[in-house]
Order: sequence, then C-alpha cells, then structure tokens
Amino acid sequence: MSSREIVAEAIGTALLLAAVVGSGIMAERLAGGNVALALLANTLATGAMLTVLVLLFGPVSGAHFNPAVSLVFALRRELPLRRFAQYVVAQMVGAIIGVMCAHAMFEQSMVQISSTVRSGPAQWLAEFVATFGLIGTILGISRTRPQAVPYAVGLYISAAYWFTSSTSFANPAVAVARSLSDTFAGIQPANVPGFVVAEFAGALVALPLFGWLFDRSR
Amino acid sequence: MSSREIVAEAIGTALLLAAVVGSGIMAERLAGGNVALALLANTLATGAMLTVLVLLFGPVSGAHFNPAVSLVFALRRELPLRRFAQYVVAQMVGAIIGVMCAHAMFEQSMVQISSTVRSGPAQWLAEFVATFGLIGTILGISRTRPQAVPYAVGLYISAAYWFTSSTSFANPAVAVARSLSDTFAGIQPANVPGFVVAEFAGALVALPLFGWLFDRSR
Amino acid sequence: MSSREIVAEAIGTALLLAAVVGSGIMAERLAGGNVALALLANTLATGAMLTVLVLLFGPVSGAHFNPAVSLVFALRRELPLRRFAQYVVAQMVGAIIGVMCAHAMFEQSMVQISSTVRSGPAQWLAEFVATFGLIGTILGISRTRPQAVPYAVGLYISAAYWFTSSTSFANPAVAVARSLSDTFAGIQPANVPGFVVAEFAGALVALPLFGWLFDRSR
Amino acid sequence: MSSREIVAEAIGTALLLAAVVGSGIMAERLAGGNVALALLANTLATGAMLTVLVLLFGPVSGAHFNPAVSLVFALRRELPLRRFAQYVVAQMVGAIIGVMCAHAMFEQSMVQISSTVRSGPAQWLAEFVATFGLIGTILGISRTRPQAVPYAVGLYISAAYWFTSSTSFANPAVAVARSLSDTFAGIQPANVPGFVVAEFAGALVALPLFGWLFDRSR
Repeated sequence: MSSREIVAEAIGTALLLAAVVGSGIMAERLAGGNVALALLANTLATGAMLTVLVLLFGPVSGAHFNPAVSLVFALRRELPLRRFAQYVVAQMVGAIIGVMCAHAMFEQSMVQISSTVRSGPAQWLAEFVATFGLIGTILGISRTRPQAVPYAVGLYISAAYWFTSSTSFANPAVAVARSLSDTFAGIQPANVPGFVVAEFAGALVALPLFGWLFDRSR
Repeated sequence: MSSREIVAEAIGTALLLAAVVGSGIMAERLAGGNVALALLANTLATGAMLTVLVLLFGPVSGAHFNPAVSLVFALRRELPLRRFAQYVVAQMVGAIIGVMCAHAMFEQSMVQISSTVRSGPAQWLAEFVATFGLIGTILGISRTRPQAVPYAVGLYISAAYWFTSSTSFANPAVAVARSLSDTFAGIQPANVPGFVVAEFAGALVALPLFGWLFDRSR
Repeated sequence: MSSREIVAEAIGTALLLAAVVGSGIMAERLAGGNVALALLANTLATGAMLTVLVLLFGPVSGAHFNPAVSLVFALRRELPLRRFAQYVVAQMVGAIIGVMCAHAMFEQSMVQISSTVRSGPAQWLAEFVATFGLIGTILGISRTRPQAVPYAVGLYISAAYWFTSSTSFANPAVAVARSLSDTFAGIQPANVPGFVVAEFAGALVALPLFGWLFDRSR
Repeated sequence: MSSREIVAEAIGTALLLAAVVGSGIMAERLAGGNVALALLANTLATGAMLTVLVLLFGPVSGAHFNPAVSLVFALRRELPLRRFAQYVVAQMVGAIIGVMCAHAMFEQSMVQISSTVRSGPAQWLAEFVATFGLIGTILGISRTRPQAVPYAVGLYISAAYWFTSSTSFANPAVAVARSLSDTFAGIQPANVPGFVVAEFAGALVALPLFGWLFDRSR
C-alpha cells in the first residue's frame, strides 16, 4: 500500500503544478497584457484542479501535495516519520515533473530559471497568512466535515490567489518548482527560501491554534 | 467552550475582512481601471472565502461573523444575551484586525480613513434587500438543509455583490471595518450609520417573515 | 400551508428577477462597453442566486419560479390545477415586483418599457432548446438525485446564458417581467409572445421524452 | 432499457456539443477580440453544462458522451462490446447534431468545415495529458465517491481548457464534431486523427495505472 500512496502524491503534485504553470502560460498568452484577466483564469484553473486532485487522491494518500501539510500531520503523529520523508521526496519530484510537462505542452524549454522577483516582508507575511489559513482549513474541516475538504481547499486557494500580495503559493514544493519556470507563475530561486520559511511558520502557528479550536476531546 | 466560540468568531471575521479588502486591493492594482473586472475578482475571492469560513467555523461558533446575524439568533433565543454581546465585540475586533492585516500584506498604512461615498436612499434600499435576503437564506436553509448553508451563503453574497447598487455589505461589522480602508472596498465613515441602520432593518423584517415560512411547528 | 407556498413562489421569483435585472444594470454600468464581461457578471449573479433560491424555497413550494415548470408539474398531476393557477399569478406578480425593486436600487424609473429587439426563428429555437434542457434537468435530477437539483439548475442556466443566442430566458414570467426593464436584461414587449410560445413548446416536448427516460416504473 | 441508454448518450452528447460550440460562438461575438475573455466564458459554459449532463444522464447510461471513456469501460468488462459499439455510434451522431443545433441557434450554416489549425507534438502531448487526467478522474472518483463524479468531471475539464495547449478536447467524438464548425471551437479535419490517437493513448495509459491505484481488491 505504501508505494501506492507515494505514487499518488507524486502524480497529484505533478498534475497540480502542470495546472498552475500551464494555465499561467495560456492565460498570459491570451490576455494580451491584461494581468487581472490572466490571474482570474489562472485562479479558476488552479482552484478547479486542486479540488479534483483532492477528491481523486484523498482516499489513497490524503492528497497532501505539500510538505507543509505533511509536516503538520507528522507532528500530529498521524504520518510516520519515514512516510513523511517519502512524501516530501515524492512531492518535490512530482512538482518538478509537472512544471516540465507544462513547458513541453506549450513548446517551451523543459527547464528554466525564473527571473520574477517575489520578496520582502509584505509578501512573507502574505505567505504566512496564506499557509496559516490553508492548514486551519484542512485541520478543521477534515475533523468536522471530511467530505467537504476537497471543495474547501479549492475555494480557499482560489480566494487566497487574490487576497494575498504573493498570490498564495502556500506550499514549499510549489515554491521550489515554480522557480524552474520563467513564466507567469515563476519566482526567482533567490526568493524561494523566504517563501518557504514563511510557509512553514504559518503552518506551525496554525497547528496548535486549530488543534485547540477543534480539540477531539471536547 | 465559550472562549473557543469567541476566538472562532474573531479569527473568522478577521479572515473574511482580509479577503474582502485584500482581494479588492489586488483586483484594483491589476485591473488597470477596468472596474467590472476588479469587482468580478473581488466577488470570487469573497464568495469562495466566505464559503470556506462558514464550513470551517460553523461547527464551532455558528460562523456568524456578522452582528445582524447574531442579533437574529439572539432574538430567536438561540444565542444568550451575554454571548451575543461577546460575539459582537469579537466580530468588531476581528474585522478591524483583518483590514489591518490586508493593508500590511499590500504594504499600505495599517489604518486608513476611507473617502469613498456610498450613500442615499437607493443604496440604503440595496443594503436592506441584501441583508433581508442573507438572513432569509440563513434561517431557511439552516432549517431544511444545514449542510448546504456554507455554499448558499457564499453564493448569495457573490450574487448580491452584483445585483445590489451598494455591492452588498450586509454586515454592520464589515461596514465599520471597511471605513478604515481607503481602497477599493472602502466606505467613508460618515456613510456607515446609514448602511448599518438599513442592514439591521432588513434583518428585522426577514426574521418574522422567514420564521413564518419555515415554522418548525409545521 | 397553501399561503406559505404562494408567498414563497412570489418572493422567490421577485428575488430572482431582482438578481437578473439588477446584476445586468451593475454589469453594464461597470463594464464600459465590454459586453462579454457584462454578460459574464450577469451570468455568475444569476446562476448563484438561482441556486440559493432553489435551495431556500424548494422545501416550501418546490421553487418553480416559472410557469413552464409549474405547467409540467400540473400535467404530471403533481400540482393541482387550482394551485397551478395560484403559482402562475404569484410568479407573475413576484417577477414584476422584482424588476421594480432592481430599478429602485439603481435609481431608475420603477416601470420601463424595453426597446431591446430579441426575435426571429434562431432566437425562438434557442428558447425552445433552453427550456427543453431546463425541464429535462429538473425532471431527471429531481427523480434520481433531488439534493443536487439546486446546483444543477443554477449551473444549467449559467451555461445556457452563453450557449443559446437568446441568453436563455427559459421562463415566461421572466420574459414578461424583463419587458418592463429598458436595461441590459430587457426584451421589447412585442417580442415576448414569440419567446413564451417557444418556451412552452420546449417544455411540452421535454415532458414526455424525459418522462420516458426516467420512468418510475423501471 | 437498452434504447433508453442509447438515447441518453445521444441527447447528452448533443447538448454537450451545443454548449461547447454555442458558447464559443457567443463568446467570440461578444468579446471583441479578447481571446482570454472568450475562452473564460467558453470554459464556464462547458464546465457547468458537463456537470449538469453527468448529473442528469449518469443514472441512465453512465454519461460517457466520449468514445475514449466507453472504450475504457469496455476494456474493464463493465460495458459489453455490443453496447460499446452502440454507445460510440450514439455519441458520434449526437455530437454532430449538437454542432448543427448550435449553428442553427446562431444563424450559421448547419454544416461547416473548420479551418483552425490544431496540430504538432506539443498539442498531441496536451491531448494525451488531458485524456489521461480525465480517465483517471473518472476511474478513481467513481470508485471512492461516486456522488462527486459530476462535479469532478466539470471542474477537471474547466481546468484543462486552460492548462493544456490544445484547450483539452479529450474526447474523439468531440474532436470529430468540432471539425464541422468553422467557429471559435473548431479544428480542421486534417488535424483530427492526431488528436484522436493522442486521446486514446492517454486513456490506455491511464487505465492500468489508475486500475492499480484504485484496486478493488485492497
């Protein structure tokens, strides 16, 4: 069963990144400089695909696709440490393959280095808030209405693309993989560590707070 | 249990306002003067986030995030008076923190005073209708299909952003907090009382009408 | 119980028309001549509100809001003739009040006469197809997955706004009421009969076909 | 029962193509050269209609509307060979009728020959990925959460319109029928075989992989 879970995390993260990066390329190509319209299309594709992927792979692997999510479940002792390590590797490999797949579908170089600057305290706060809300959404709703989690996660990310100044990466594997795409969704490699630290920080603050709010012992 | 409910109301209202104001700032920045496109993005972010927050906090506090909603439940004797007062304070404090958080994420002054005029009988009628419909939606659907309430509330506000001339604040805490943001979502402080009165009026008319339509004794 | 059902049909149809006409006015005002963007906003508001209203009033009155739908249920003997007549009156009165309410919210004359031409065989075919699909959707899904009907109806009309050349009125009460609004959603009175005939024709063809496809005796 | 299933496949595929092609025509007419906006409207109409049609006809015929989907179920021995052949004929006939219906609603020649070039390895890869994901979505979610399949399929295609360079036909009957429309959604006949081969290839790779991931014997 273990290998099925790992393959599910890898394929799911690959399809997620293909959707994020591919729809960004398509949107930028068609929008003719109208950035709001491009981000709107990118948002709809990402939110819809994320919902589908959580519906699809949730029953197999939990559909984390995100090292910050896996870390939270590891700290809650709901994911063994060894499995946690396997998940993170699968997520990273899947994410990079997904970006390369998007590039191939749009006739671009398979591997690129992004030059998009995304940095500074305001964007780090945005990543902190985005991941804090994502972890809270997952912890709370998986406890009270598990059937609604896929829709909630897709809707949450759709909203967060717009209400955070960073457009809500909220996922360290996504941040790393998007540094390998010099397109709409890119982030230059030098800016990745700031995003990753902010994301883990948001997750680590959400963990005890939402643990208390949704305490199983009540 | 009481403190959990109050914290849930505060965090939920803060995240709601961060979404409303933050997505308004992002939308206005990217839309380059295309107000319809900016409102469309603002609508999608608000509706999606509201659905998520009601899914998330509904089982903890009821997910009111709105003094007009809490008043209706207090008058129905489903919320004790003391709890009602605590909820309203938590909603107001949360709403203001959410606006400040949005400003911080977008590198703006934390506290601002809006200069956007939103006034006149037509907009007051709009707030009356918007809140009337919101309270009716909550009272009716929570009685017959409680699992659908989060989706119904998100969809209702998405529609009401467009079919009311005021863009449907429908929430006194939201009206007060948005007066502290001189951005897309703002309302100048002098116009807040008119909105708040119209909102409570809409709620107070909806209460007996939908109480009769969805009478439990049937 | 009877009066509750009739009030529900009237209020529901009024809110539906307020949403259709109100969001059309807002969209046209903000879109600055971009008709595609205006119709997109009008679509989202209409589809979202229709879903909410069917969720809300379905358990009370069936949430027809539409004489063609009520006729189909009358012909299936699921709605007594007297009740059918009451429903149609409530729908017509509600629809007209809803249009007037939209005008008042946007500071327009309460009653107007539309000058928008919507006519010709292609648009009548469109209304036939739109209503055929709507009735099929309602008959089939209410038989197999009744909880999904509100979402299906909202999604169906959202799609039909775009895939029919008439933007899918699919409702005789809506056609009449929209003739009283010289705004984005209007239709000139002389063109209403053609629409109404096509709508009832689509309903009457769908009735036996979907009755056979979803035969209860299977 | 057999004839009901075949009629359901034919009507469902006809309405799907009417929605795809009709909304493409409407979107192109209104968008005034803004291709991103046109594709956004086309996406929303297609995704919404697909969800409705799978909700509606799923309980009758399985709601395949797609020879690649029917092939997968035939190879899994869940669709007898004779029924498979009937389904494919019904899907092809329905698809062509749907295109003609869209043309009639928009006052265009009933049958046209598309001149839109959609070819090359990048687009074939896109069709492979699009169909791979569609089949995976259907196989996995119909096994674990069958009630969610209609929403998942609609959301998946909405996302895939944007994240694949081919705008995700993912359906051989759709590819053939769209070659008969010289409008927004068209594909020139000479390019159809490349799409069809890529679509069946994607389906045939997804079949064993998702069969293993969602093995019933677990």
